[in-house]
Amino acid sequence: MNYSKVVTDAENGVSLKEWTLDPREIGDASGNWSVRKKTLSGGRQEGTEVIDVDNGHVDNGLLRFCVVPSRGFNVWEAHVGNIRLGWDSPVREIVHPQFINLGDRGGLGWLGGFGEFVSRCGLESMGAPCLDGDTSLGLHGRINYLPASFVEIHFESSPAPRLILRASIDETMMFGPQLRLLAEICTEIGRPEITFNDSITNLGDSAQEFQTLYHINFGPPLLGNGSQFIAPIKNLAPRDKRAAQGIDSWNLYTGPHAPGYTEQVYLMELWDDEQDQTEALLKSPDGQVGVSVSYSTKELPYFTLWKNEAPLRNGYVTGLEPATSYPCPRLFERSAGRLPTLSPGESYRSRVVIRPWQNADELEAAEARIKNLQREAANIQRTPML
Amino acid sequence: MNYSKVVTDAENGVSLKEWTLDPREIGDASGNWSVRKKTLSGGRQEGTEVIDVDNGHVDNGLLRFCVVPSRGFNVWEAHVGNIRLGWDSPVREIVHPQFINLGDRGGLGWLGGFGEFVSRCGLESMGAPCLDGDTSLGLHGRINYLPASFVEIHFESSPAPRLILRASIDETMMFGPQLRLLAEICTEIGRPEITFNDSITNLGDSAQEFQTLYHINFGPPLLGNGSQFIAPIKNLAPRDKRAAQGIDSWNLYTGPHAPGYTEQVYLMELWDDEQDQTEALLKSPDGQVGVSVSYSTKELPYFTLWKNEAPLRNGYVTGLEPATSYPCPRLFERSAGRLPTLSPGESYRSRVVIRPWQNADELEAAEARIKNLQREAANIQRTPML
Amino acid sequence: MNYSKVVTDAENGVSLKEWTLDPREIGDASGNWSVRKKTLSGGRQEGTEVIDVDNGHVDNGLLRFCVVPSRGFNVWEAHVGNIRLGWDSPVREIVHPQFINLGDRGGLGWLGGFGEFVSRCGLESMGAPCLDGDTSLGLHGRINYLPASFVEIHFESSPAPRLILRASIDETMMFGPQLRLLAEICTEIGRPEITFNDSITNLGDSAQEFQTLYHINFGPPLLGNGSQFIAPIKNLAPRDKRAAQGIDSWNLYTGPHAPGYTEQVYLMELWDDEQDQTEALLKSPDGQVGVSVSYSTKELPYFTLWKNEAPLRNGYVTGLEPATSYPCPRLFERSAGRLPTLSPGESYRSRVVIRPWQNADELEAAEARIKNLQREAANIQRTPML
Repeated sequence: MNYSKVVTDAENGVSLKEWTLDPREIGDASGNWSVRKKTLSGGRQEGTEVIDVDNGHVDNGLLRFCVVPSRGFNVWEAHVGNIRLGWDSPVREIVHPQFINLGDRGGLGWLGGFGEFVSRCGLESMGAPCLDGDTSLGLHGRINYLPASFVEIHFESSPAPRLILRASIDETMMFGPQLRLLAEICTEIGRPEITFNDSITNLGDSAQEFQTLYHINFGPPLLGNGSQFIAPIKNLAPRDKRAAQGIDSWNLYTGPHAPGYTEQVYLMELWDDEQDQTEALLKSPDGQVGVSVSYSTKELPYFTLWKNEAPLRNGYVTGLEPATSYPCPRLFERSAGRLPTLSPGESYRSRVVIRPWQNADELEAAEARIKNLQREAANIQRTPML
Repeated sequence: MNYSKVVTDAENGVSLKEWTLDPREIGDASGNWSVRKKTLSGGRQEGTEVIDVDNGHVDNGLLRFCVVPSRGFNVWEAHVGNIRLGWDSPVREIVHPQFINLGDRGGLGWLGGFGEFVSRCGLESMGAPCLDGDTSLGLHGRINYLPASFVEIHFESSPAPRLILRASIDETMMFGPQLRLLAEICTEIGRPEITFNDSITNLGDSAQEFQTLYHINFGPPLLGNGSQFIAPIKNLAPRDKRAAQGIDSWNLYTGPHAPGYTEQVYLMELWDDEQDQTEALLKSPDGQVGVSVSYSTKELPYFTLWKNEAPLRNGYVTGLEPATSYPCPRLFERSAGRLPTLSPGESYRSRVVIRPWQNADELEAAEARIKNLQREAANIQRTPML
Repeated sequence: MNYSKVVTDAENGVSLKEWTLDPREIGDASGNWSVRKKTLSGGRQEGTEVIDVDNGHVDNGLLRFCVVPSRGFNVWEAHVGNIRLGWDSPVREIVHPQFINLGDRGGLGWLGGFGEFVSRCGLESMGAPCLDGDTSLGLHGRINYLPASFVEIHFESSPAPRLILRASIDETMMFGPQLRLLAEICTEIGRPEITFNDSITNLGDSAQEFQTLYHINFGPPLLGNGSQFIAPIKNLAPRDKRAAQGIDSWNLYTGPHAPGYTEQVYLMELWDDEQDQTEALLKSPDGQVGVSVSYSTKELPYFTLWKNEAPLRNGYVTGLEPATSYPCPRLFERSAGRLPTLSPGESYRSRVVIRPWQNADELEAAEARIKNLQREAANIQRTPML
């Protein structure tokens, strides 16, 4: 049995502000999952549309997450049992784009609403604000503040029952980018796993560069003093002098630290398997729970680890960030040959799976898989890339 | 019989989001026209108010057009029988101002929502982004992204039945412009013609400069390989080196062209008749249909032809643009003496008529009128103005 | 008897767009006051939420004022009997933040919606646009264009019946300010007086600088040729050369003046009483009515007098502005030691009372109080501070 509902379709005037789907309505008698679209009010979140997904709760619930059509179809927060996926940003509201000016503070306006678990950066550009030729580019691009023009909710009962949320978002302007993101977020009923299946299409008649990065952010309980990052490192370099200072313990977490601490960023390529798949793992301080981020190195060849072990209330967070390039200024990435191009009509696809581990056995298995991927010793560079 | 309805009045709290007027309601038994105001939803057009006007359809319809109160009372698109007036922009949604930042990309944010058939540029300034003294001016000014504070729909049964849409839009700020646009769009029932009757008033106590330009844009079917622009040229100059390259065939269209093509812009003054009226014509590739833009050279002394024969999906379009000056940087226009000033309380008026021609006879008559206006040979300058 | 109603609570999904409180509803049989929350529509005020307060009208009314939750909980306008508190700005609509870009015109975008009687400036910064290190700061900060996340209306019947409006507004971003304004506006039933009781709290884990200024603006009838400003001056300096020109009559008003006039700004410290309280007075041209602004010099040690005696329709206004510093560029204020800092969790409080005087007796009493505060002769500097 397949069910499908269009909840937003700008072209055809569909825009459901409040909508709920429950299993019984569509004849899935045994299901106890739910999907609920609603529109937030008050403060800077006035008008923000969100979709709350519960993929089948048992007592405290399995996987619950919140998708934001008004904000690039990002995922604001997720919970798996007692594990919170996400972090505590200084920004507590899901700020609507009407209150954001990406050009603020020299192109850092993107940070004015930054509080989500997973955001996509891009599409024309991502990374540090810069001047590329005579085009001024703001931090992390525009897609995370563009509203979806089309949103569809699917339920499929076989092979295994699952929910699929699809959105279409255009990043277009005259004499500018003409890129379309088809964003898909998928979860199997009762399974603690979120899969992103995204594509970016060149809508124009000229070849276009593009960039994308999955900004996947964790705070407590997964992040804490004693947390560890584990991945099959092929090459790694500190981004800058500040990161180079911490190179000897680049994958260990010791924070939160006192005021005055500044972020450390590590840029890396990972080993993969025969299907180009790789996996990166964050282990909680007590080593009992964790989360893996899995993806294809063909699709996302570069990985950035963002350590921001700031004081708790200043935005204590670490980011696991697979991407088409590093988040350095676009000009720098282009020179390094890390800037892909789409021909007219061509599409790029990427798939990212986020899978929390709720016990030590699962964690061990993940570590074993990563160890297995590590074909040769990691090449750790001590000098900054920038 | 006169009918009048205020659908928006910010001062008095009137704001009809959905509203329809049909002839029978107001006692025009024979009429088959309609006016429909609605509010768009979804994506970047969330909250955009539009007014769909049908001036009396016969089978496939006569004239239909869409006015956008949320966006400077511009005209998004029009259809006359099978002729589409407008073009295919990379921007497909009628983007709401909340998603536009005019300062983007060094003052090119205006292009983020540019997809309309007719937009007014101005009022404080229009043309290329520039620094004028210590005021930074963005492309084409602000009026095209300001919402109407007052909108009124009129129907008058005599002398000939016609629809008049009126709006009031303030471009004001403390220590800045204090200009009011009274925009009027008029169409006679059953007649394929749109008339703009606009005025700009200085609301302040000091003299103020102002600029206005009608950005009237055509793509297929009127634009194509073989299309021709015809007007009674008095003086003409290429804007820049790029335009100078094409000076020998400045009024002929050969596109769409391959990627890499860049726009060509020609700046001109036209001959007029004893009532200061002039006419500019765009002929379709097969010479069977066309469109005229008529106006007073007293009101709009300068005319710009924008040829953007880019690949189809990159924004293939030509603009016929009568204006108070050329769209060069304001400082340049001021030096050239092309910047008008309004005394306190003074109003400027402009009238522009857009008239499509649906057969070769009408076209020929238009050509003959233009030929008649051409009192002396055109003075075509080969060196760029800028 | 206490009554309390939450009308906006972003966190808990409360957002009443239309709501009215009248005395009978809550059992105050004798009361004839009212509180009405509504949402404006049309033009640039689309979506602006306002709260109209009438504190007990007798015939023409006692005190009526309009609070704007969408705009930093500012007070748009007030009336006491026949006296209007406020001014006639070129901006006539209560512009919604969605139409404002603070970065416009080199950081002067704040002026695009400036028309209110009382706005708070700050919180991260206020004053002239400037570059402070590599942070670009716009005029008067962001708080005046941030919507309240929480709004509560209180009525307390004793000791004297009064209305209290409370709001919470966060000025937060990642890697930026983490400041919360708790704004309180209080008025005793039947008493022509508005009291601001505000606090600013450091929500982060690092020490943070902050700035705040009450921009209290008056036009006619209190401002006119012959109006006078009276305060217990300790030190005074003209801001710049332009202000220095008028130093001999710095406290007298002779406008409105002809076009070409530019503003004059005077920076001062005032004497206070044993409780650190001080008072500044604006007298109407005929000396029959006036208004006092009272506050603590401990909380708000610096006072700015803004004379903008421009032509009537260009924004004829004077501002009485108690603040934590002068509205000079933040770097300049920091060097001068006028930039306070909040420790993590620390709150700053300020209280400002605005009290109109409706007859000559009340005015005389106010003048006498101010004279009494003037312990020593004023120290008037003739050379500009900047």
